[in-house]
Amino acid sequence: MATISFKEKIEGVRGDASYEAKARVFQEQLEAKIPASLRLPLAILEDPPLDVTHIPETCGLLTPKELLITELDATAVCQKIAAGELTAVDAVTAFGKRAAIAHQLTACLIDFFLDEGIKQAQQLDEYFRKEGKVIGPLHGLPISIKGMLPVKGTVGSAGFLANIETATEDCDMTRILRSLGAVFYVKTNQPQTLMHLESKSTYGRVLNPYNTDHSYCRRMIFSALVAMKGSCIGVGTDGGGSIRAPSAHCGIYGFRPSCRTTPLHGVLWYQPGQDGFFSSVGPMCRSARDMRLFLEAVLGANPAFLDPDALPVPLKVPNLTKKKLRVGIMMHDGVVMPHPPTIRALKWAKHKLEASSEVEVVDYTPYDHDRGYSIVRELYFEDGGATVRRILKESGEEMLPLTEWVISPPHVRDHDAAEVWKLRDERDHYRREYSDHWRSQNVDVVLCPPFPGTASRHDTAKYWGYTAIWNLLDYPGTAFPSGFVADPAIDIYQEPPTPMSAADEYNLSLYDATKFKGAPVSLQIVSRIFNDGLVLGAQEVVERILKS
Amino acid sequence: MATISFKEKIEGVRGDASYEAKARVFQEQLEAKIPASLRLPLAILEDPPLDVTHIPETCGLLTPKELLITELDATAVCQKIAAGELTAVDAVTAFGKRAAIAHQLTACLIDFFLDEGIKQAQQLDEYFRKEGKVIGPLHGLPISIKGMLPVKGTVGSAGFLANIETATEDCDMTRILRSLGAVFYVKTNQPQTLMHLESKSTYGRVLNPYNTDHSYCRRMIFSALVAMKGSCIGVGTDGGGSIRAPSAHCGIYGFRPSCRTTPLHGVLWYQPGQDGFFSSVGPMCRSARDMRLFLEAVLGANPAFLDPDALPVPLKVPNLTKKKLRVGIMMHDGVVMPHPPTIRALKWAKHKLEASSEVEVVDYTPYDHDRGYSIVRELYFEDGGATVRRILKESGEEMLPLTEWVISPPHVRDHDAAEVWKLRDERDHYRREYSDHWRSQNVDVVLCPPFPGTASRHDTAKYWGYTAIWNLLDYPGTAFPSGFVADPAIDIYQEPPTPMSAADEYNLSLYDATKFKGAPVSLQIVSRIFNDGLVLGAQEVVERILKS
Repeated sequence: MATISFKEKIEGVRGDASYEAKARVFQEQLEAKIPASLRLPLAILEDPPLDVTHIPETCGLLTPKELLITELDATAVCQKIAAGELTAVDAVTAFGKRAAIAHQLTACLIDFFLDEGIKQAQQLDEYFRKEGKVIGPLHGLPISIKGMLPVKGTVGSAGFLANIETATEDCDMTRILRSLGAVFYVKTNQPQTLMHLESKSTYGRVLNPYNTDHSYCRRMIFSALVAMKGSCIGVGTDGGGSIRAPSAHCGIYGFRPSCRTTPLHGVLWYQPGQDGFFSSVGPMCRSARDMRLFLEAVLGANPAFLDPDALPVPLKVPNLTKKKLRVGIMMHDGVVMPHPPTIRALKWAKHKLEASSEVEVVDYTPYDHDRGYSIVRELYFEDGGATVRRILKESGEEMLPLTEWVISPPHVRDHDAAEVWKLRDERDHYRREYSDHWRSQNVDVVLCPPFPGTASRHDTAKYWGYTAIWNLLDYPGTAFPSGFVADPAIDIYQEPPTPMSAADEYNLSLYDATKFKGAPVSLQIVSRIFNDGLVLGAQEVVERILKS
Repeated sequence: MATISFKEKIEGVRGDASYEAKARVFQEQLEAKIPASLRLPLAILEDPPLDVTHIPETCGLLTPKELLITELDATAVCQKIAAGELTAVDAVTAFGKRAAIAHQLTACLIDFFLDEGIKQAQQLDEYFRKEGKVIGPLHGLPISIKGMLPVKGTVGSAGFLANIETATEDCDMTRILRSLGAVFYVKTNQPQTLMHLESKSTYGRVLNPYNTDHSYCRRMIFSALVAMKGSCIGVGTDGGGSIRAPSAHCGIYGFRPSCRTTPLHGVLWYQPGQDGFFSSVGPMCRSARDMRLFLEAVLGANPAFLDPDALPVPLKVPNLTKKKLRVGIMMHDGVVMPHPPTIRALKWAKHKLEASSEVEVVDYTPYDHDRGYSIVRELYFEDGGATVRRILKESGEEMLPLTEWVISPPHVRDHDAAEVWKLRDERDHYRREYSDHWRSQNVDVVLCPPFPGTASRHDTAKYWGYTAIWNLLDYPGTAFPSGFVADPAIDIYQEPPTPMSAADEYNLSLYDATKFKGAPVSLQIVSRIFNDGLVLGAQEVVERILKS
């Protein structure tokens, strides 16, 4: 197999001459924002190792103190700042420098503005010195923001070159985070269309820091920055799995709230008014408690005051010492069987939970997930993908294979108003039937795979059923690391498996035990719509038992 | 002017021979359900007076005790039953008998099943005797249900002959009400399409009990049953004003909750999946406290447990003795000037409120209501009315003038998926702009007209702007009686008014002081989305001040 240079690995979306000219300007603008003092030596960049996660520690660009700071999770950063043990300037400087390194190794950014971040941090430090208290629960916390969420004065886009723009104002989410004391310093990369479970845009292809190999099994993530510890909390969106799947793929924590409980207003989107399904804004982070920190802070700021489309549903984390949690185990969804590492982790988790007196464990039977996945795929592009094709054509941007796949028949087709209603009626029927089914199973939460395997090869993430089904149902969920990694010695099929579906056959074809070696294996916990607090509480209980 | 018989006045929607044959069957089935013992003398029916509200008291069909029971509001009925001072059987018998009388005078019913209601009541009385307590907060309360809300075993429809059916199960709302102890005994009439502010269906044209005259100014309502005291609480739906406008027209109380806080699932609708706007289920009743009784009971039953589309937003009625309520007065919406009786009542209310130290009064400036009304009208029929035309054509049902009006250009036209998104995007922009505007006005609630006049003549209720604008915004609201009635001696234009718009010109043309004499004049209080509890609390404060 021909070798490919690192530069080629991270190459972004191509296009016609007009596109390329514009793309070069954007790419050069970003390039110019990484200061010389934060550039990795050419020796590293020309031939980085497959696992780049240790380079921040070895490259010499970060001081020992900065390395210590970037080991902290968000909760610890906030606590230390509030206790006067850490300044906001030191925090954002450390994470900002590490983000610059991460970006050079994984193409995870679309904008870098550490100087701005430091200015914000200075003001916060000044406030803290004067007032003797923090300005809000996220005082001084460096937070990275996904490209589609506008941060005033910085670059954003809705997933195409055509809509790359510098924001003239914050969206509601960043406005609220800013008011809570968060510090912004980077915007993160995202896929063409925003509707892939991997990220390749005009700004480059994001690599998985655990394995940047592209030849067979380079796993992709756009949570790369958090995994590289260049950010404590990354704010993402999830309309089909875009928080949970990437988090699962690199072993971090990701939470998808029930839609419209966190503020969506002002987020860039190329199909405005498309309200048949909603994306949801949530955190990607490095600890369970950080998910809670983020949600309690954001919901505590009352997003519904700004936004008539935000729902003032209170976040209630129940006391699970009083009531025995009922955990349903969904080993697979009846459509696609997860790869052996995921099944092994889930069986182990089931065993651990069954052995605990803290929870009750039952088998959870999925309800017609194939039908649900078809409905949600049709909902994504009710215009048959015409808007996507038009945007690409107008700017001369090439159509990536996963874009072609996601907007193509049979799942996707054009609709008139009556057909739009019919589709949404099918959605509503399915949601109601599912709700009845869920209640009949008598579970509080379901523990299940977040993806039909560990991180996937580029251009192969075509089965989103393990996350998108919960988007359709609007069931909140979290992906979190099981602590396991794929092990080729044991993660093998004992006998040739019989595919359950065409999608399963495809998924089977992607598995090769040796190639997934060392990949983090994650799990997912979901609950019924608006039971966000229950998911957070249950995740803590389950993780405690699994770690015991 | 030619006289018209009472029978002709209440005549229902006509159609071709096939339609007429089916309609006759439905009408005869209903007719047969009114027992001989509850029939009014022919002498009354052949030539009833214009004001029929006193007939229940004078016709001799109700005992003095029954008359006393039907004077009670819902709260009093529930209290008396809970105290053992009244049985559920006596309650439903009294209201059921009165409902039968009301129906004969106003065509307000589509089904009558008092025997079933008495059976339910017997079981509840039995429970009360055995357990010594009520089964729920609505124990034994007779509640009338709008046609489109299924009650198992009874007749319902979605506004056309084609979808008249006997329900095989309760919808969520009636299931919840039943579980709370409510007793059902009648289903109420509703308009063709469900989208008129007056009611004429296969089952007849509903007359306003205060003035059944049709020749010029017979006012219409489908809250006739509550006004006739044939029901304590009528459950209705409101997607453009169908709770508030009829309540206003006959001087009762009506509340439209924020959408999806009360359960919608299972309600009959001929455009299923049409989710660009929502109807909302709420009460029509005879006292302010009954609105609160209803909402606290229904929301207390947690509709979101059954329905994944119901929103678990808590109902919070604030303590308004602690905080000074800020009331904005919107004298008119900048599009259509209300008739003199409404303006007089609103000016008087403003004066009374200004004189009170309990509230702060400011002028409220409307925000582009014309644009909002256009958006919501377009949203009602995104398929250009094709579904309505098809249903009518297939069953041979005639199209009423208000149906033709409501589905016609320029407001209504067909859309493809991209146009549906565009329209909904316009909706969302308007909602956001309005929300910003509302906050800039610094008001808690707005006091405004519920309609551009008192009750209107048949086939003229074409300006819904005073209610539908709040449907688009999803701002909860209540219509309630000012205590005033129209007075031709003073409700006159001092000088010829200048129309603000074509709609205003039309509205002006409908006014004739002498013809509206004695019509109840109502007011409306609204607040921002999800501030349902604030509306209820503010209504109590405002009404107390107005009555002082």
